[in-house]
Amino acid sequence: MNENEIRRIVQDTVSAVKNRKKVMTLSLAERIADATVAEAARIGVRAVVCVSDAAGNPKIVKSMDDAYIASYDIAVNKAFTVVALKMPTSALKELAQPGASLYGIQFTNNGKIVIFGGGDPLINDDEVIIGGIGVSGGSEEQDIALSAYGRKYFETKI
Amino acid sequence: MNENEIRRIVQDTVSAVKNRKKVMTLSLAERIADATVAEAARIGVRAVVCVSDAAGNPKIVKSMDDAYIASYDIAVNKAFTVVALKMPTSALKELAQPGASLYGIQFTNNGKIVIFGGGDPLINDDEVIIGGIGVSGGSEEQDIALSAYGRKYFETKI
Amino acid sequence: MNENEIRRIVQDTVSAVKNRKKVMTLSLAERIADATVAEAARIGVRAVVCVSDAAGNPKIVKSMDDAYIASYDIAVNKAFTVVALKMPTSALKELAQPGASLYGIQFTNNGKIVIFGGGDPLINDDEVIIGGIGVSGGSEEQDIALSAYGRKYFETKI
Amino acid sequence: MNENEIRRIVQDTVSAVKNRKKVMTLSLAERIADATVAEAARIGVRAVVCVSDAAGNPKIVKSMDDAYIASYDIAVNKAFTVVALKMPTSALKELAQPGASLYGIQFTNNGKIVIFGGGDPLINDDEVIIGGIGVSGGSEEQDIALSAYGRKYFETKI
Repeated sequence: MNENEIRRIVQDTVSAVKNRKKVMTLSLAERIADATVAEAARIGVRAVVCVSDAAGNPKIVKSMDDAYIASYDIAVNKAFTVVALKMPTSALKELAQPGASLYGIQFTNNGKIVIFGGGDPLINDDEVIIGGIGVSGGSEEQDIALSAYGRKYFETKI
Repeated sequence: MNENEIRRIVQDTVSAVKNRKKVMTLSLAERIADATVAEAARIGVRAVVCVSDAAGNPKIVKSMDDAYIASYDIAVNKAFTVVALKMPTSALKELAQPGASLYGIQFTNNGKIVIFGGGDPLINDDEVIIGGIGVSGGSEEQDIALSAYGRKYFETKI
Repeated sequence: MNENEIRRIVQDTVSAVKNRKKVMTLSLAERIADATVAEAARIGVRAVVCVSDAAGNPKIVKSMDDAYIASYDIAVNKAFTVVALKMPTSALKELAQPGASLYGIQFTNNGKIVIFGGGDPLINDDEVIIGGIGVSGGSEEQDIALSAYGRKYFETKI
Repeated sequence: MNENEIRRIVQDTVSAVKNRKKVMTLSLAERIADATVAEAARIGVRAVVCVSDAAGNPKIVKSMDDAYIASYDIAVNKAFTVVALKMPTSALKELAQPGASLYGIQFTNNGKIVIFGGGDPLINDDEVIIGGIGVSGGSEEQDIALSAYGRKYFETKI
């Protein structure tokens, strides 16, 4: 193989990888959710995990056995919030405290805005948000770690 | 092996099978949802499939690529309705027509009651409803066929 | 100019036109809404006109002077319905009557499904729904005519 | 021209100007919204801008390309809040903090009360509130600046 052929193969591969992440598919969402559920099991958290598309609509939701009933709503709405406001819910948390600039945003959008950690936007190589992940079921630290795990998995393994 | 040993083995096996279906687990729900999604793909329907537990809360929701946006709410609520009222949504349909005995039930429960076909309770060998399946995305006939497919899969393959 | 140059120019133009309609922009939505509002004025209807994006979220809403207060909600939700169910609201109307296959769909999705005429999906040259138009304010026939006018304008003038 | 003629012309002009602003029309609302959208573009904010009438109902809503999904609800409800409570949302912000006199108002009116900056009543020369403007999409400071820009435009350019 000469240099040009190698370059072409590399470009094609890069392009294929990028195209795979242009839009959130059920297949993509499932891989992210499965990896996150496995990690939750590993650290002993019974979580609900939701992966949404670019409009904040769920592509997949999984509720692990014995997860909190309340976690379903929270996970789904975290996955909405991160897309609807283009930031992790842990970043929104700061802005939504009493006295802070966006205090009160949690009461808008018919209660779909979640203002504590455990949600991350899923951003592709073109810096486009193609979906979001929301995790609920552990402590806030655990939910944050699990959501970050899912985001990282999306960024590096897919 | 004598007769007693054989009997014991048979009993254990039957008991194990029954126990596997005593409660809706994520693992069970996933197998039912995956089989139903595969069948939807086979007949060319882009569906949202939800399997709920005995309280009507979703264990899993999958939204196939290019499914109707409206189908998410409908599938999740069909899976609630069949557990909450212990009947297929196609049976409720008859009862909820103007003039029929339960006309108006569709306005109760904060809009979570769905009164057209595509939802089935999942009933185990002890005649206990351990969950529900809701499908939305095709014509009513297709949704009914897919939901029945999921129920049948649960009854015979699990 | 030789044949190749002409072909290239034609291809570029076709491609530019198609790309202009790949996604609903505020600029596009405004042109559709303005044309529809002008037509409403011409036929003497005081309408609310909404153009939504592919997720059913409004890009623009205009409420003509002295329009019905109720028409705002109706127009916005018509523009959601046509995207969420991929059909004109006048087609959904038939399916949602008592006794028909989807009777009850009007009670799903938190009341955002509208089942009478005056909403149309906006479909581009690639057969992709990139948005929707919802009109409310006149008789059903007038709303249907105005919505169809907006759709036609999108298809032929943009 | 004698003194009387001059006086009459002045009075007619003042009266005409005042009458133009007695009621929020779609035409007025559009001019305010367009000016505010242009200013948002100039400072690099992708905003949703809503101008409501004296009852808090939207006359026009514009969602700039790539605005936050959540901003639609927020902008529309800011434009409602300023009319419904006759004050800028930045003034309400102070009153709605924990411990302050109106803490809790954000939970009333079905979630339509927004308690952070970016909304202003539109007050005519007779000191009558004839509508409101709500802006969402930037930081709170940016939303406040943009809403004030729209209000000022209404007061001085219309």
